[in-house]
Amino acid sequence: VAKAIKEVSKSLEMSFSIVPDDTDAIQCKLREWSDQGVALILTTGGTGMSPRDVTPEATRAVLDLECAGLMSFVTTECAHQQPLASLSRGTAGVRGQTLIANLPGNPKGVGEVVPLLLPLLLHAVADLQAEQ
Amino acid sequence: VAKAIKEVSKSLEMSFSIVPDDTDAIQCKLREWSDQGVALILTTGGTGMSPRDVTPEATRAVLDLECAGLMSFVTTECAHQQPLASLSRGTAGVRGQTLIANLPGNPKGVGEVVPLLLPLLLHAVADLQAEQ
Amino acid sequence: VAKAIKEVSKSLEMSFSIVPDDTDAIQCKLREWSDQGVALILTTGGTGMSPRDVTPEATRAVLDLECAGLMSFVTTECAHQQPLASLSRGTAGVRGQTLIANLPGNPKGVGEVVPLLLPLLLHAVADLQAEQ
Repeated sequence: VAKAIKEVSKSLEMSFSIVPDDTDAIQCKLREWSDQGVALILTTGGTGMSPRDVTPEATRAVLDLECAGLMSFVTTECAHQQPLASLSRGTAGVRGQTLIANLPGNPKGVGEVVPLLLPLLLHAVADLQAEQ
Repeated sequence: VAKAIKEVSKSLEMSFSIVPDDTDAIQCKLREWSDQGVALILTTGGTGMSPRDVTPEATRAVLDLECAGLMSFVTTECAHQQPLASLSRGTAGVRGQTLIANLPGNPKGVGEVVPLLLPLLLHAVADLQAEQ
Repeated sequence: VAKAIKEVSKSLEMSFSIVPDDTDAIQCKLREWSDQGVALILTTGGTGMSPRDVTPEATRAVLDLECAGLMSFVTTECAHQQPLASLSRGTAGVRGQTLIANLPGNPKGVGEVVPLLLPLLLHAVADLQAEQ
């Protein structure tokens, strides 16, 4: 993920954390980082359709505002080339001053999503910070 | 908004109301107009990602049936030309006999959305009225 | 529906059931079949915007995981040719080991949706079964 993101934006400060496929663990980390005022949190993985894929639900539960249309646009654009991209259930939205978005776990999927998604996320982050 | 709509459909009777970015005020107006049997309510603004952007949530709470796919299609089509359109969080749906849809606040955004959205809304309105 | 599906996949075993436009009746049948371990349930009809169109809400209530992006992609692709397709409110998702998706009631709509949707559903079904 970091590699795909660095190709788009080289100036970001980044932290990483690996959390288990567990609703509480995911929500806890999202709350911790958003409460610290992190501008953007990207999750990767847990967006499929097996019982352990709980990332979208865990994310939605901590969001103040969901922006379903953002992932819907990006997924639809990617699915136009690769229809299986439509099986990814990721969402995006805002918690406090933090933008959160779910990337797929598959590195190929991330490589397709990030070039389209990241400029939009950075625009939304700039808008959110201009509000303060 | 009215100007963009008039270019598409000249025969509508229209009323306007300006309400604050407040969940209760928005819901109150949506309930008032839908209880009067208004065929179509278009909101404009409050679909972004700042804390005062509460229009989609306020709308969703008064809908009997949400039609997320309608705005998703229109947003995706517009975003294909202008990716930032995907940051608009507007929804659409039915309350009683009234169709409600959220337009963006930005006049340029409205100008892109309305030519695509309005024919679909008018078709849905005609279907709803044929049910009665 | 069966005809459109058979053109895509001839090896499926299929059962049919006609249930009324009633939330309880729909949920009861979806629960019955998914509890039996059926791999894929396709509903048809009840995805419009009249008060009797309750299939998406009835479906959503029995899903463990919703995959809104799947129907959003398929609807958007179909709507690109026929914008009225965007008025269909169908959803899709997983209950237990069963994939459930809502097709429109209109045979023409089904004929457009199925060739695009079914390969994706079969892929998701194979993934779900590989998990077991």
